Amino acid sequence: MSAATAGFSDEERRAVYRAIHERRDIRSQFLPTPVPDDVLGRLLDAAHHGPSVGFMQPWDLIVIRDETVRRSVHESFLEANRRAAEVYGGERRAMYDALKLAAILDTPLNLCVTCDRERPLGAGLGRQTDPMTDLYSTACAVENLWLAARAESIGVGWVSILHPDRLRELLEIPTSVTPVAYLCIGYVSEFPARPELETKGWERRQNLARLIHFERWGNQDERRAAKLIASDSSIA
Amino acid sequence: MSAATAGFSDEERRAVYRAIHERRDIRSQFLPTPVPDDVLGRLLDAAHHGPSVGFMQPWDLIVIRDETVRRSVHESFLEANRRAAEVYGGERRAMYDALKLAAILDTPLNLCVTCDRERPLGAGLGRQTDPMTDLYSTACAVENLWLAARAESIGVGWVSILHPDRLRELLEIPTSVTPVAYLCIGYVSEFPARPELETKGWERRQNLARLIHFERWGNQDERRAAKLIASDSSIA
Repeated sequence: MSAATAGFSDEERRAVYRAIHERRDIRSQFLPTPVPDDVLGRLLDAAHHGPSVGFMQPWDLIVIRDETVRRSVHESFLEANRRAAEVYGGERRAMYDALKLAAILDTPLNLCVTCDRERPLGAGLGRQTDPMTDLYSTACAVENLWLAARAESIGVGWVSILHPDRLRELLEIPTSVTPVAYLCIGYVSEFPARPELETKGWERRQNLARLIHFERWGNQDERRAAKLIASDSSIA
Repeated sequence: MSAATAGFSDEERRAVYRAIHERRDIRSQFLPTPVPDDVLGRLLDAAHHGPSVGFMQPWDLIVIRDETVRRSVHESFLEANRRAAEVYGGERRAMYDALKLAAILDTPLNLCVTCDRERPLGAGLGRQTDPMTDLYSTACAVENLWLAARAESIGVGWVSILHPDRLRELLEIPTSVTPVAYLCIGYVSEFPARPELETKGWERRQNLARLIHFERWGNQDERRAAKLIASDSSIA
């Protein structure tokens, strides 16, 4: 394989932005249709092509189809979610209780993506000043898989309402390894146009212009920033 | 905008995998060509469409073009890198010293992507059991930008050899905000076919089949895993 100097065609470029804009965290639209092995293989390979600090490749991928295992994780989610709900009151609580926040048993395939904090690969290059970078690498690998899944018409739901220690126990993960993401993966009836937490009124999308700073933190200029992003619509 | 039920065409799907497989951490191939505002706007918007726990959108984006600011970050990198080099000896040290690990002054554009740990958006949904998830969300936003950049023929280099506290000081970032990524961004002469750390002999790409587990950690089956990923080449 030689160096790639060729640019992307307009169609290719649009396809990449399409995946980015149409990616969704799916909980409610899953179908029971199995995910074929070759498709799963491409998704895992997409994750493995994530960037990694010092080329450490700190990830492992636990493919979970067994119902007993999924059931145990689901129980653990239910318990964590019951406790999580307790911090909300009134209308917020009613809204929280009405949200579907995991699809562990509704999807034929779950995947746990982990980060081996002690993997010697890369010999620590790039990790001496910020020890978090191996975890960031693993999160980037998850995003690769998530975007590839959208292109395969496959939905992904990231279940974060799980205690990492409990998940470690259930999946027999060593203590030096951090479970970064627990994903529910499957074909879907549709990809909603907007995040469910937005349409259900939990939170609104922020105005990007307000999140942009120039040269230094706090040096914001909403008009200047708005001009930068004015061209969005031509792609989205 | 209505729900997207349409699948990706084969061409679109291939374009997404192309971005994933041809994305590189660039340090040596940058050109001084400026990045136009509309292109930068699309990249920032891609980041803003990253997944976020509870729709927290914890990121801010500091766009840095000013040479004085870049020079101060570059100095900080040089110092951190001098100390980082000291842990290596012999051949490893010679190899380390020959690597180019940042392009802060070679790129017309730097970007610092931060995570506001105290942002109230999303009301803590999904973050009670694993407080790291806002940082993971921010890393996913970085990966979105990185892939969009590849589609725009723009290279990105993530400089992790910087002390987060020093970077905070230089960019006047509040202590409650974590700098997750410092990126060098610019057009490139080429996208190398393989990671530079691989071609220069620092580290090898791992065999993906060895990183796959079934149902539980440690339940590995290299032949079964190899079959899953046998179809890679038809896409890559």
